[in-house]
Parts: sequence; C-alpha cells; structure tokens
Amino acid sequence: MNAPIGRLADSLTLPQPYLLFLGDTTEPSYAKTAFGLADWAADRCVGELAIGGCTVTTGLPRLSSAEARAAGARSLVIGVANVGGVIGDSWVAALVDAMEAGLDIVSGLHVRLASVPALAEAAKRTGQRLIDVRTPPPAIPIGTGRKRSGKRLLTVGTDCALGKKYTALALHRAFTLRGIAADFRATGQTGIMIAGGGIPMDAVISDFEAGAAEILSPDAPDGHWDVIEGQGSIFNPAYAAVSLGLLHGSQPDVFVVCHDPSRKVILGMESFALPLVEEVIDLTSRLGSRTNPSIRCGGISLNTSAYDADAAEALMAAERERLGLPVADPIRGGASFDALVEACLA
Amino acid sequence: MNAPIGRLADSLTLPQPYLLFLGDTTEPSYAKTAFGLADWAADRCVGELAIGGCTVTTGLPRLSSAEARAAGARSLVIGVANVGGVIGDSWVAALVDAMEAGLDIVSGLHVRLASVPALAEAAKRTGQRLIDVRTPPPAIPIGTGRKRSGKRLLTVGTDCALGKKYTALALHRAFTLRGIAADFRATGQTGIMIAGGGIPMDAVISDFEAGAAEILSPDAPDGHWDVIEGQGSIFNPAYAAVSLGLLHGSQPDVFVVCHDPSRKVILGMESFALPLVEEVIDLTSRLGSRTNPSIRCGGISLNTSAYDADAAEALMAAERERLGLPVADPIRGGASFDALVEACLA
Repeated sequence: MNAPIGRLADSLTLPQPYLLFLGDTTEPSYAKTAFGLADWAADRCVGELAIGGCTVTTGLPRLSSAEARAAGARSLVIGVANVGGVIGDSWVAALVDAMEAGLDIVSGLHVRLASVPALAEAAKRTGQRLIDVRTPPPAIPIGTGRKRSGKRLLTVGTDCALGKKYTALALHRAFTLRGIAADFRATGQTGIMIAGGGIPMDAVISDFEAGAAEILSPDAPDGHWDVIEGQGSIFNPAYAAVSLGLLHGSQPDVFVVCHDPSRKVILGMESFALPLVEEVIDLTSRLGSRTNPSIRCGGISLNTSAYDADAAEALMAAERERLGLPVADPIRGGASFDALVEACLA
Repeated sequence: MNAPIGRLADSLTLPQPYLLFLGDTTEPSYAKTAFGLADWAADRCVGELAIGGCTVTTGLPRLSSAEARAAGARSLVIGVANVGGVIGDSWVAALVDAMEAGLDIVSGLHVRLASVPALAEAAKRTGQRLIDVRTPPPAIPIGTGRKRSGKRLLTVGTDCALGKKYTALALHRAFTLRGIAADFRATGQTGIMIAGGGIPMDAVISDFEAGAAEILSPDAPDGHWDVIEGQGSIFNPAYAAVSLGLLHGSQPDVFVVCHDPSRKVILGMESFALPLVEEVIDLTSRLGSRTNPSIRCGGISLNTSAYDADAAEALMAAERERLGLPVADPIRGGASFDALVEACLA
C-alpha cells in the first residue's frame, strides 16, 4: 500500500500559505469559511483579497494577488459562498489574475472550478492548479481493520452541524499547548482548508469509507494523537453510513460526544427525535469496539450558544452530574474544558 | 422529488430479454454471472453466445446475435469474468457484432465498457447503449427517513459472500409462489442483472447511501413486499458503512440473517472473528429501529454447503433450538424453508 498512500498524501496536501478571497460579499454569514481560516489557521494566511463593494473583513491585511505571492502565498482560497454554491461572475477576473500572479485556486464550493471555462483556460495557460476540496483523492484502498500505532480521538455527535469540527480543533489546540504531538485530521471542506489537507468523507464511495478513514490517520509514533473531525451521526437516518465508516476506520481510543441541548429533533427531519447523549455513548462504544476494543468516551462537548452564561453553566453541571463524565463548551473554555482535555488524555 | 425518481427509474432499468455472452471461457467458475442469470432469470434470457474454444454452457440455446435479436433479445449481457475484470481482446469483435445486430451491451465488470475504443466507436455508430451496472444512477437524493407504504424484507449477514443474494431471491420466489405481490430489489451487479434493474449500493457516494436505498424500494401498495438483497455486514470493518446505509434506507419490517457456520473469521481479515448470529440480530434490530421501530428478525438462512445432508440438518436443528427462530438453508429448501417463509410473512 506504500504507493497509493504516497500518491494520496500528495493529493491531500493543499498549497499554503493562503490568500483569503472574500469576493464582493456584504453578508458576513456567507464568509464563514474565511472567518474559520482566520480563526484557526491565521499563521498560514498572509492576507485577504476583496473586490467591488465587499464590506466584510477577517482583520488580516488586504493584499493584491501579486503582493500576496510576494509575501509567500501559494494559493488563493475562496473563503465565501454564494447562494447555490456557484462561482460569482464578478469573481472570475480576480481568480484569473491570482493564477497569473502564481497562485493556485482552492475551493470548497459544490461547483467544480474547472467547469468555469475562463478558469480552466487560465489554469492551462499559467500551469496553476484548480483544487476542489470536495473531491476525494483517487485510489482510496478498501479498509483492512489493521490496528495502527499512535492514539486517536474522534468527535461524534447527536446530529450534524453542532460543533464536531470546532471541538476537534479546540482539543487539538489544547493538546498541542500541553506539548503533546498531535495532528488535526479534517473530514469536511472547511476543516480540510484549515488543516491544509484531509479527506471529504461524505464524498467518498461507500465501499471505501472505512479505508479512507484508515489512510486519513496513518501509523504514528507512540504518544502521538490524531484528533479526527467527526461527520454526521450514527443516529442520523441520512448520514449514518458516513459516520460508521469513519468510526470503524478511525479506530478511536477516545471519542467525545458533541451535543446541542437546544436541539430536539434531527436537523431537517421533524419526525426523528435527537438521540440522548447516553444513547450515543453506548452505541458508539459498541460499534467502535469492533476495530478498537478499548474505545472509551472522554466526555461531552456541549454547544451552549443558545444560552446565557449562567444557564450554560447550570446545564453543564447537570449533565456532568447525570453522566459522570467531564462536560464542557470549548467556545466558553475555562476549567471545565481543561478537565475534558485531561480526561481525554488520561 | 418526482423528477429525479423518474430519471432514476429509467436509468435503473436494463433492456430485457438478454443474450448471455460466455466468451471463450473454459473455466465454469468464471461464468458465475451467466449461471446466476440462467438460474434466476431464464424466462428473460433468449439464449447464449459462445466464441472460440468456449467449453461452458448454461443449457440455453446457442444463438448468434442476429438470431437472438430476431428472438426478441434487447441486450447482450457479459456473463463471464476474466482475471482482472477486463474485456478480453478476443471478445471485442463479438460485442461489436452484437451492437450491429441491434443489441445493447450490459456489463458488471470493473472496467467501463466505453473505455474500450472499439466498443465506444461502435456504440456511437450504431446508437446502441453501453451499460455498466457497477455505475450508480445520477441524481440520487439525500435520505429523508420518511416511512414508505408497503412491506420490506432485507437480508443481512454475519459477513460478505455467504448467501444474502441467494436468500433474497429464494424468499422472493417463495412469496410470489404464494400469490403475494413482491419485488426483488437488487443491490449488487449480479442481482441487478437478474432483476433487470437496481442500484450497486457499494458504488454509491456515502452521503447518498441511505437515499439510494430509499429510492430502491419506493412506496408500494398495502400487502406488497420488497425483498431487498443485503450487502456486507454491519460487523465488517471494511464495508459496514454500506450495510448501515442500506439498513436505514430500506427501513425493513423483517430481516433474515444469513450465516455460514463453517466460516470463523471475516473474509480476508484473520484477526476479526465472525460475529455470532445473535449479535447480528441484536445490533440489526437496534440500528434498524431508527427508521422502522417495528423491525423484527424473521429467521436465519444457513449456508450449509460445507456439510452433508445429515450434518446440515443437525446444525439447523441446533440453531433453531438455541435461537428460538426458524432456521433453513434455501438451497436445500423443504419444510424448514417453508417455515422461514411463513415466519417472515407472519
């Protein structure tokens, strides 16, 4: 398997540092990718590029593509989304200019970059690459179930979109601050841009789902931790296949359950109650034990963004008492988050 | 969702009846697809076509492509596999001749038919289609979890390749013989050729796995049964994603566990013990209840091909006693299989 892994590793690595492209965006919520990169990968972002009447900013220096290239940037990342996930007509000239300045283009949009004729033509002419992070690498192997060296942590959830990426990033940062060798392993588009690599697990053909998770977190030295971004939920009727393949292939030693106590039903599926946190702990332990018999729950990451500080603290205390496990909101941090980190590493 | 389902339904339907292509095969085990079609879809096969020194036969009439077309055939099905799953050089002229006679070409091989230049050219010239059944239909929707009308049975297993397709076909035939309206729903290449349609579930992108299973067994009249071919096993470290997506999307009322008592470890994975039948019953019930709370186990299909008749009978009796459920080998049939059928329909 050396050859395919070598090729995969190459195809999984994004050219950094980045120039963040904001387009002509006036609505901050459309620039979530750019803000995520500025929050979690600022050391790998040389600046931002805005065009037309753009009113949002990440706070990074405003640079032209040529200035960014001179400052070391290797790619322009599209940090904004339009309605429909398309490439704005008004963006094309700026993207072509970036390629002419020597930058590759990185996109997490649904539309393929090369489907825009002007971009395909400029890529051919300049030799710069058009990189769609929603496209998985070629030649993913079938899973083997082989136990790998090093330690692994996976964030799982009661549902989609309630903090699995943020929790994994916060735990990875905390591990690193404690001097522990660790890698954040990204499984979704924004995470992949932050990490500078990864595999979009929801875009992998199902037969290869576990195999993709296996190559995402390869053998590592003793004491090294891979902190793996979870996807979906084994209780989500649409996406459980993604979650189980990721769980089996990740063979985590520790998992952290991410939950939003204000959410009562599965996102977009009114007839499906959100599972209880203890149901997720129990089923994740059972399914995960197939590839790692010593899997355990490290604690709970509670997304308390819907509550004020007192209500959040009360919620976390009640959950801590009820479950007998560390409970923290990584966005609020503090001593409870430290306790969660320690429990994961214990 | 009407439009995509309409398009999907079209793209899932293979042109029947078939002419079975045996190539120049001399090794019967390479002609398993042709034998499967002759066993389960003989009424939709007008004959067989052999070339060169072919020594195997399905027992169907030997016809030229022109004779087959005159007898009503609409496609030639490649019923043999070479080592490596490629199109034999010696086959190409016969396949081109079939297209010139007015037949589409249907293949379950790994290689795409259109990747062979002579076939692509002939398809363009004659207007006949090149159909790769390993390619899923386009525009599969995300799963919804919505409860559908009609009844569903899914075959599941302790592992891959131990009788899930055969069991589903045998149950479908038994249901039909009892006058019950039923469809066999195919999820793998050979099953798809037998059924004349279906979805290759292992080739579907994981985000759409449950959605694919949902459109595979659409709303049906009261009293109608879809008998769905299972894939893999929720205990298989490589393929559980496929199995769980299929389970959630199929929302079965009844499942039948397929097991080979002579197999002790997962195929190709020496370090993974085969799960116990009762573990498969328990975990399938638990996971399946997410989309069908009234899911139940109808019984066990035991593949006793490794045992003589007395040993097989003793094994089945012991399992029946131990599990308190009907246990039968559909290949051996008999009263025990009738009891399994009745329990599924109860």
